[in-house]
Amino acid sequence: MPEAQIPVGTHPALAATARAAARAYGEARGRYTRLELREEVALGADGTPTMRVDRIVEDAILEACVEVGVNLLSEEAGFVDNGSAATLCIDPVDGSANAALGVPLSCYAGALVLDSEPVEALTVWFDTGRAWGARVGEAAAFRTTGRTSLDGASVCLLRPKRGTEEAWMRVANRADRIRVLCTTCLETAFVAEGAVDAFADPGSDTHRLMDLIAALVTVPAAGGVLLDLRGRPLEFDLDLTRRWSGIAAATPELGDELISTILG
Amino acid sequence: MPEAQIPVGTHPALAATARAAARAYGEARGRYTRLELREEVALGADGTPTMRVDRIVEDAILEACVEVGVNLLSEEAGFVDNGSAATLCIDPVDGSANAALGVPLSCYAGALVLDSEPVEALTVWFDTGRAWGARVGEAAAFRTTGRTSLDGASVCLLRPKRGTEEAWMRVANRADRIRVLCTTCLETAFVAEGAVDAFADPGSDTHRLMDLIAALVTVPAAGGVLLDLRGRPLEFDLDLTRRWSGIAAATPELGDELISTILG
Repeated sequence: MPEAQIPVGTHPALAATARAAARAYGEARGRYTRLELREEVALGADGTPTMRVDRIVEDAILEACVEVGVNLLSEEAGFVDNGSAATLCIDPVDGSANAALGVPLSCYAGALVLDSEPVEALTVWFDTGRAWGARVGEAAAFRTTGRTSLDGASVCLLRPKRGTEEAWMRVANRADRIRVLCTTCLETAFVAEGAVDAFADPGSDTHRLMDLIAALVTVPAAGGVLLDLRGRPLEFDLDLTRRWSGIAAATPELGDELISTILG
Repeated sequence: MPEAQIPVGTHPALAATARAAARAYGEARGRYTRLELREEVALGADGTPTMRVDRIVEDAILEACVEVGVNLLSEEAGFVDNGSAATLCIDPVDGSANAALGVPLSCYAGALVLDSEPVEALTVWFDTGRAWGARVGEAAAFRTTGRTSLDGASVCLLRPKRGTEEAWMRVANRADRIRVLCTTCLETAFVAEGAVDAFADPGSDTHRLMDLIAALVTVPAAGGVLLDLRGRPLEFDLDLTRRWSGIAAATPELGDELISTILG
């Protein structure tokens, strides 16, 4: 695996957990077969199955959190109190199905939360080492495309699920180009850095807090917006049963147009 | 760019053009902005617009073909006769839109054709250096997943186009996981190496010869099949107006099930 290119000045807790995650991910890819990596070894705190690759990377993150003395909120382990005012909210392996299949689209995504407020985020693409760091209230080093309309847009979509097929196809028919990469955290990072114009879950309410919290910091810092399709507030919460339909867009105008297109 | 990991024993004409393509692609990514890379600079021999990134990489391939003394059939240049019995049929940059946008899913894909018969193929993923080589009549070093049914399958699809929406959604609803990566040559290589179970154009007749000819050699050499949705023969032809709807599948059974699902 290429080394994670973590930006200078990244909070040590984010940097340490991202490095631990990248290392564990690389070792797991070397040690286990694809079939072993995607074997479901447990049921996570969020109610979804935990693949072996998720478990291995989360264990490495947990260890790093103890070392640097921060709490952890993670999809598999739930809330782990290490007696700190700071909590890392982390998706250890976003795109685990990609990772387990050998499709090189998977990443670490985490946010540092102080007193229930996300203040800094870091996303690290395991397969390339590229990283995106951002802080609330500071302009990021990268910018969205600035596109304001769905006509001509490149849009990433969550795969269609039962009940969202029509909304999915309405977006696909309006946009210029559609991709389904199966990694929300990386797809929202692509929106932030201007590789694509937008990303959307067209109403399946699939997203958990850790799927969106890094984007909640990163996309606005790059000039874009992160919204919920139905206007529910995106906020830090220890209740891992909450779900959202996240929309990341290069501009508020594009975000609004995506939402109205999805809602029909 | 990582160096292309071209297998030992690859035909020198394929190896030389792939190396030239990878080098030119890396240089173009360094020299031009994303906007410049995707600027349409000409209309190709196949009737589709040529982006600057396509042009740059094809120029490098053309030069390599003259040096090694083989003919070239390419989407932008058409047929270039260098007085040889051997012709390389090449897609210089498959996934050019990805390449131009910074989505790291783009590749070189070529086949060596002797007397109208494809005999060897090479696919090189620019962004990672990974390469897949195969020869007609020889088992490749990689295998498909061997999956025989669409239930539980991971399927890559061409993005839905007007008129194929229903067929597209029938496949999406049957398969376990859908991806749209916008790079046919890489997606068929993923089928060959068992990262996904199948790839399909659900009837839009988008594929040209150079989108499929590497897969025509590579997928069967790995135990899978490459078919046209409507049973049209996939064959070498200098007529670049011909189109197909390519289906790559881990097994003949899965290919047949995909076709019957698409045709409804």
